Amino acid sequence: MDKVGIIGIGQSRFGQRSDASLRELAFEAVKGALTDAGITLDEVKAMVVSVASDELSFALQPSSQIVDYLNFYPKPSFRVEGACASGSMAVRTGWMTVASGLADVVLVVGAEKMTEVSTAAVTDVLGRAGDFIWEYPFGMTFPGYYALIARAHMAKYGTTEEQLGMVAVKNHHYGALNPYAHMRKEITLEKALSSRTVADPLKLYDCCLISDGAAAIVLASEKLAKRFNNDPVWITGLGLGTDTLSLMDRRDLTTIDATVEAAQQAYTMAGIEPRDVDVAVVHDCFTIAEIVAYEDLGFCKKGEGGKMIEEKRTYIGGDIPVNVDGGLKSKGHPIGATGVAMAVEITKQLRGEADHGRQVPNARIGLSHNVGGNGQHSAVHIFRRD
Amino acid sequence: MDKVGIIGIGQSRFGQRSDASLRELAFEAVKGALTDAGITLDEVKAMVVSVASDELSFALQPSSQIVDYLNFYPKPSFRVEGACASGSMAVRTGWMTVASGLADVVLVVGAEKMTEVSTAAVTDVLGRAGDFIWEYPFGMTFPGYYALIARAHMAKYGTTEEQLGMVAVKNHHYGALNPYAHMRKEITLEKALSSRTVADPLKLYDCCLISDGAAAIVLASEKLAKRFNNDPVWITGLGLGTDTLSLMDRRDLTTIDATVEAAQQAYTMAGIEPRDVDVAVVHDCFTIAEIVAYEDLGFCKKGEGGKMIEEKRTYIGGDIPVNVDGGLKSKGHPIGATGVAMAVEITKQLRGEADHGRQVPNARIGLSHNVGGNGQHSAVHIFRRD
Repeated sequence: MDKVGIIGIGQSRFGQRSDASLRELAFEAVKGALTDAGITLDEVKAMVVSVASDELSFALQPSSQIVDYLNFYPKPSFRVEGACASGSMAVRTGWMTVASGLADVVLVVGAEKMTEVSTAAVTDVLGRAGDFIWEYPFGMTFPGYYALIARAHMAKYGTTEEQLGMVAVKNHHYGALNPYAHMRKEITLEKALSSRTVADPLKLYDCCLISDGAAAIVLASEKLAKRFNNDPVWITGLGLGTDTLSLMDRRDLTTIDATVEAAQQAYTMAGIEPRDVDVAVVHDCFTIAEIVAYEDLGFCKKGEGGKMIEEKRTYIGGDIPVNVDGGLKSKGHPIGATGVAMAVEITKQLRGEADHGRQVPNARIGLSHNVGGNGQHSAVHIFRRD
Repeated sequence: MDKVGIIGIGQSRFGQRSDASLRELAFEAVKGALTDAGITLDEVKAMVVSVASDELSFALQPSSQIVDYLNFYPKPSFRVEGACASGSMAVRTGWMTVASGLADVVLVVGAEKMTEVSTAAVTDVLGRAGDFIWEYPFGMTFPGYYALIARAHMAKYGTTEEQLGMVAVKNHHYGALNPYAHMRKEITLEKALSSRTVADPLKLYDCCLISDGAAAIVLASEKLAKRFNNDPVWITGLGLGTDTLSLMDRRDLTTIDATVEAAQQAYTMAGIEPRDVDVAVVHDCFTIAEIVAYEDLGFCKKGEGGKMIEEKRTYIGGDIPVNVDGGLKSKGHPIGATGVAMAVEITKQLRGEADHGRQVPNARIGLSHNVGGNGQHSAVHIFRRD
């Protein structure tokens, strides 16, 4: 199997981007990625687009808005979707496009415009990533799902509200250093703990933001990657797991089994173990999700995720720095963009280009972890610099 | 590049399937495909799902409904979308999954449930496959788009309303022979021409049906395909083109440039020419679309599509039999299922299993052509039996 390398990265600023439409956000990211790769759009052979929601983009085929605005026709392009993990489906599909030989230079774009409708409408659309028949009609939305997970984790492992708050404090700390982040402000643990309840025990600062944004990467075959870029970042492991539609059908609320499966696939494919990972971005849609991810990815033993953040082992200088771009929590979570933005961040880290005091020293192996829904999909990717 | 073979096919009956939900339709198709392949779901390593619309499935990640109902977790699965060509995006992605080495047995499922909402609501959802900013708000829906294409073709090439009606007569003739078709009735040219106007010059019998349905195929690597099936059908060519979002930006209304591009890619990859194709299924969402497809696929010269149907050259016994399963026109067009159902039909034809008097004799090379929107996407696939 030939290697597939990342030769260009770009992203828009995340935030409430009333200045830019879906297509304009995608353009910002693509322009950055092509400039970074030092190539023109003419040299790109195919494109994969991630936009998670038809409804938020008011379109049946949102990828066509992006193809059109970039004048990318008549070349191959289509959309992939896995709810909040859609961006990772695009990275996976871009990898397959190159590895299968269908195209040797592929643009992967993820974008979402979420602030054009009300927060209630977004909550409704996202809620329908869960079970539309047996859970959503009874009032379940995403804060509720993750509140159940948090309560179960607290009951089983003694995880505390303070530990949840510490995840927010860390991610806001690093987000404040990231010029692309939605909310660039430090918070204190007291502020996190005294914020209003969203779905008990989750408070405002336990929840990620609703953001607009886009991210893009350029992938190339091993042969071309080395021609365009002396030092590409290789995607060496791809894992994708799925789980039941209903949370009530899960084996154990304190684990996302799809993540355990995806991680196993990715580690095996890359030939590494969790302790080999130098830097990770994980799906912290809610603070509890980051704690569960530590455990499911094998960064610590099951049940010790709370302790891991309490001991600051996921800060830079700790065992394994996690979400030093601010995470979904502070950088923002434009759902179709997130998985691609994760690849952008890990590439920056492995290149040593994460400026503003948030670079992990000597990072050679990176990991991204992206959950769709409340665990119906989970993707884990491993990245490596030679 | 290793070959990728189809080792199993299945589909649900298309129609107004008030007896079955989206997941149940998918189950019918998958059960058929696995039985046909002689394997169990345990032997399948990954799945690709095509559902075109979030809104029609009331879900943000409709593929999870299908994963869940099949108990397919924790294995890899996600959704792909290219509007009415979504099914062909799934076939393409399934092919890439095998060819890239990520999995050696892959299930490709396409499904759509369209009759649970009103016809007006479906027309609205489909209309938003076009340009949401510059065309849809001014009242454009799909019959309108294709009416403009028909008028332009009539003006430029002298194509007649009678010739449009003859496409409907042919496809209803073959659809009547297909036990999986939505509308199994022959019609006369008089009946077609006297049916009520939908969008002038298109009449009721120029328009395809709104249907529920699902289709599935099992793909395998060359090595495994031959172990499971002595005589698999190989996918030897894959083409995918795109075009402008707005119809008004097109170079020429009488051609779908995305189809010309996709056909060129597919013929080159398969190493064949249009005259080598023994049997084809093309995207006849409206009768004019089939006539334009004859030309864009190179089955006849530009402008001679009307003559081609008038001379019955696309009936069995003619130059190249087209849509002898009834086409979208009579078999039905559950949009996420269509591209996969096309692969099912071509496989049947190449195996010599298209019963009920609609088998094309000695067919060895088949072609499928699937358009998304009004030409924003177009996919052409070439199939071959050794």
